[in-house]
Amino acid sequence: MDWAGRDDLRPKQSMNLGEGSFLSHDLLRIIPLGGVGQIGKNMMVLEYDQQLLIIDCGLMFPESDMLGIDIVIPDMSYVFERPDRVRAIIITHGHEDHIGGLPYLIQRVKAPIYATRLTRGLVEVRLKEFHLLNGVELHTVSPGDVLDLSPFKVEFFRVCHSIPDGVGLGITTPVGLVVHSGDFKFDQTPVDGRLTDFAKLAELGGRGVLVLLSDSTNAETDGQTPSERVVGEVLDQIFARAQGRIIVATFASNISRIQQVVTIARKYGRRVGIVGRSMIDYAKRAAELGYLDLAPDEMLSPQQMNSLPPHKVAIVCTGSQGEPTSALVRMALGEHRLVNIRPGDSVVVSSTPIPGNEELVNRTVNNLFRAGADVYYYERARVHVSGHASREEHKLMLNLIRPRFFVPIHGEYRHLVHHARMAKEVGVPRENIFIVESGQVLEFGPDWGRINGQVAQGHVLVDGLGVGDVGNVVLRDRHLLSRDGFVVVVVAVDADSGEVVEGPDIITRGFVYIREAGDLIEEATHHVLEALTYGGPRATVSTKIKDTLAKFFYDQTGRRPMILPVVMEV
Amino acid sequence: MDWAGRDDLRPKQSMNLGEGSFLSHDLLRIIPLGGVGQIGKNMMVLEYDQQLLIIDCGLMFPESDMLGIDIVIPDMSYVFERPDRVRAIIITHGHEDHIGGLPYLIQRVKAPIYATRLTRGLVEVRLKEFHLLNGVELHTVSPGDVLDLSPFKVEFFRVCHSIPDGVGLGITTPVGLVVHSGDFKFDQTPVDGRLTDFAKLAELGGRGVLVLLSDSTNAETDGQTPSERVVGEVLDQIFARAQGRIIVATFASNISRIQQVVTIARKYGRRVGIVGRSMIDYAKRAAELGYLDLAPDEMLSPQQMNSLPPHKVAIVCTGSQGEPTSALVRMALGEHRLVNIRPGDSVVVSSTPIPGNEELVNRTVNNLFRAGADVYYYERARVHVSGHASREEHKLMLNLIRPRFFVPIHGEYRHLVHHARMAKEVGVPRENIFIVESGQVLEFGPDWGRINGQVAQGHVLVDGLGVGDVGNVVLRDRHLLSRDGFVVVVVAVDADSGEVVEGPDIITRGFVYIREAGDLIEEATHHVLEALTYGGPRATVSTKIKDTLAKFFYDQTGRRPMILPVVMEV
Repeated sequence: MDWAGRDDLRPKQSMNLGEGSFLSHDLLRIIPLGGVGQIGKNMMVLEYDQQLLIIDCGLMFPESDMLGIDIVIPDMSYVFERPDRVRAIIITHGHEDHIGGLPYLIQRVKAPIYATRLTRGLVEVRLKEFHLLNGVELHTVSPGDVLDLSPFKVEFFRVCHSIPDGVGLGITTPVGLVVHSGDFKFDQTPVDGRLTDFAKLAELGGRGVLVLLSDSTNAETDGQTPSERVVGEVLDQIFARAQGRIIVATFASNISRIQQVVTIARKYGRRVGIVGRSMIDYAKRAAELGYLDLAPDEMLSPQQMNSLPPHKVAIVCTGSQGEPTSALVRMALGEHRLVNIRPGDSVVVSSTPIPGNEELVNRTVNNLFRAGADVYYYERARVHVSGHASREEHKLMLNLIRPRFFVPIHGEYRHLVHHARMAKEVGVPRENIFIVESGQVLEFGPDWGRINGQVAQGHVLVDGLGVGDVGNVVLRDRHLLSRDGFVVVVVAVDADSGEVVEGPDIITRGFVYIREAGDLIEEATHHVLEALTYGGPRATVSTKIKDTLAKFFYDQTGRRPMILPVVMEV
Repeated sequence: MDWAGRDDLRPKQSMNLGEGSFLSHDLLRIIPLGGVGQIGKNMMVLEYDQQLLIIDCGLMFPESDMLGIDIVIPDMSYVFERPDRVRAIIITHGHEDHIGGLPYLIQRVKAPIYATRLTRGLVEVRLKEFHLLNGVELHTVSPGDVLDLSPFKVEFFRVCHSIPDGVGLGITTPVGLVVHSGDFKFDQTPVDGRLTDFAKLAELGGRGVLVLLSDSTNAETDGQTPSERVVGEVLDQIFARAQGRIIVATFASNISRIQQVVTIARKYGRRVGIVGRSMIDYAKRAAELGYLDLAPDEMLSPQQMNSLPPHKVAIVCTGSQGEPTSALVRMALGEHRLVNIRPGDSVVVSSTPIPGNEELVNRTVNNLFRAGADVYYYERARVHVSGHASREEHKLMLNLIRPRFFVPIHGEYRHLVHHARMAKEVGVPRENIFIVESGQVLEFGPDWGRINGQVAQGHVLVDGLGVGDVGNVVLRDRHLLSRDGFVVVVVAVDADSGEVVEGPDIITRGFVYIREAGDLIEEATHHVLEALTYGGPRATVSTKIKDTLAKFFYDQTGRRPMILPVVMEV
């Protein structure tokens, strides 16, 4: 059990300076950025001698209290202040949380982007959406390549994840060797047959690693993450039994899962169609690049999905997280333009809910059952496995790399704590393990390391076209409005006498159902008029209205709408 | 695996009339009510010959899209239309989701309430909050009692759950015997040593049961729900190791868990304090009634929790679901008035997140780690077990009762489907299993059953003092306001000429940060003036303002605030 080895590993602000000097040519900075609730998830900056190397630039989805926010990106201000110092942008794999922030970065920072072939393809899809593809310097790399980006030398090694073509990085700096795990697992039987490069990990470890930065997502999960192949076996059983259509929902970018469905569908004489724009885009790009064995003319049209005999049809679609506007959710409600759930369909919800999405996923499963489908989902079948390493894999990674310093990244604080404890268990000295928040600065010399200040917040909110303009004030107002709505009271007063010449007019939304609240509003109007009987300076008028109505409405309804008086002098 | 026995069990609207007649004296109606996303969770109505028997009356918490809603109660309109026909209200146990709606019921329906001793005590706590205790007819019953509430005869039998003194019901009606499971599990080693009454279940089964209504909460969970004793063992290990204070968070009404902490604390020489008003109320009442072995003068004061040697202190508190205003959440943030987390504390979050609460629970765990605590929680230790039966227990229940008709209740639609499939597996004919939505009416004769219409919605929203007045319109407005805020434009025009004489004034909240959006608002003002240059009828003026600003703001910000023009004629 966990506490068997417990020994608090809380954030260490203390430094371990050893014998090292502080000359800048002996100083490597590492700054994890991004992550909503998670730390160092979406972006990483390495800095040596004022030269920056950026690893990944992803986006995150807002937490439930970030009302109205569309996406969240890392706070890149530290980079934006040094746009000419960026040597390169390295992308480890093609998931949104590692590439989705690129459009916001490359609009202000001109630097070459390096990625493996599929990753590059998906980066291109993303940049094209923003009409930013032209003028960007994109390079394709392969596992085994070594890039000289002086003062950094970057070696790419293959890692398994839930998307093909992912890599980890060995980065040689003048201060020492840094290893970045990428998002990884040690899948012994991956869908594409390409293993994590154990030999390279061992070789890097043999050279002597100064710092390991490693994915902490599943640092709470015991044992070994099951192979993607397990999902294939479960899907095979579902295909073997189903009489009607089979619909598999997964992430748009989960090329491996799409490939599994295509392969198994062929085995059972079914053809595959895709529903969901983003997934179609990703699949086409992956097929063009040879990462998905599915010819575009092989894909079913929506008409065919509906008209072919059900036992000849398999459909892959988005919506596995119950996202309200996704294909699966609309199909379950019978509200999709092209394809809807019919009694007899078998639906596989092939993902595990991201924390916060459980209610949406469960609601979707309920609606699928209501629509007459048979449903396979996380609670009842292993229709998804994580793309991230579990505890035994983490220990293996740590033992292969044997780093001098260890920094758990890519996880919530609790995950970092558990990852740190494992590092200690396998022999990394406690004082050489750093748990940091996003935006904190790690500094390393050849034989020392420390946390030294903070240069950025964790993240920046994107709402519509606005990047970072929505902050606490606007969010607080949205929160208040979402609870009890608002009341605007407009009154025109004579500029000279202060007498009410028109109004008060009361406009309200989100507070009471207006059609049934006529009496309440009328009574409120009287209260306002009464309170204003004796006129007074404009400022007093506003306060009087506000106080009168706040009390009146709370007494009558128990609610506290936002009250905004508008006094016009005419 | 699940699909091994699959055979769609979708809602059956068809009837199975057999030989039965339709005379009202041969007709038993059963109407499950309440439940947010869940079905028949909070309340049940039995009706025979126009006499009603009510089982439970609970509350639920709102789903995430029910913005600003405080609580949700069952739609009781069917009962309110027949207030004089209610023979009795039977309460199965003292959890909020079974008693929390009582204040709303008994204000309009005078009927005696029957409950076991602890349950009655907790009902009294609840009614006292609403100043409704006087004038209510409360009766204490014990397992084994038989109540004659003609035409119903109600027998109470003991069931284990996560609160002591829970019961299930055997209800003899002129049409046949109905068994209601209550919230139950088959715990062989419960904390209070009182087992579910297997003999009574078998005896009821032997008599011949017409309908079984049974708790479906864990119908997806394989095997057997672990005993509460397992949690005791884990807590004991934590107490054996911890050097500092130990803080255990659980539900306010989880008397069994509080008892476990008290007992183990004594063993290790610690004294116990409670933080959280509702938990203190419940614990005191339980102690008075002999269900909690903790004398009030034995409890630590907040001062003692802070000043005694840490290894002498154990604290029980609310907040295990990460509720934003709960004790644990505020303690983790250092914002509690009395007690805050200190480095070295061990914190046990003794619950499993209710779907939808995962993000809040995880955030709290992260903050506890940040505050320097060691944290034990659902992902890493068995610090909580469910109070509800798992699949093997359900099969046993079905085989003991051997009902002619089966109605899964108390679960999401998916749970009901899985429970129904199990009933079929153990031999209940498929056509005798009814999956219904809350408010649907089940009708039974001596040898037939059917679904016949719907008499109520699932639930009613309570917001402040308003019960049911907030509906789709208000919620939609709150949703829009929560996304992009609002803009009110006030303009005074000459009543005769239609010329603008004052304004436009623009008031906005939740849309842009006003201090930095001066230019945007000023430009918007110009656009409005321009659009109104040629005057026009009042209706046109509003439309012009709305169209102009909607387009302008969307072009500039990508957002769609609610736009409300107010045109005053002066």
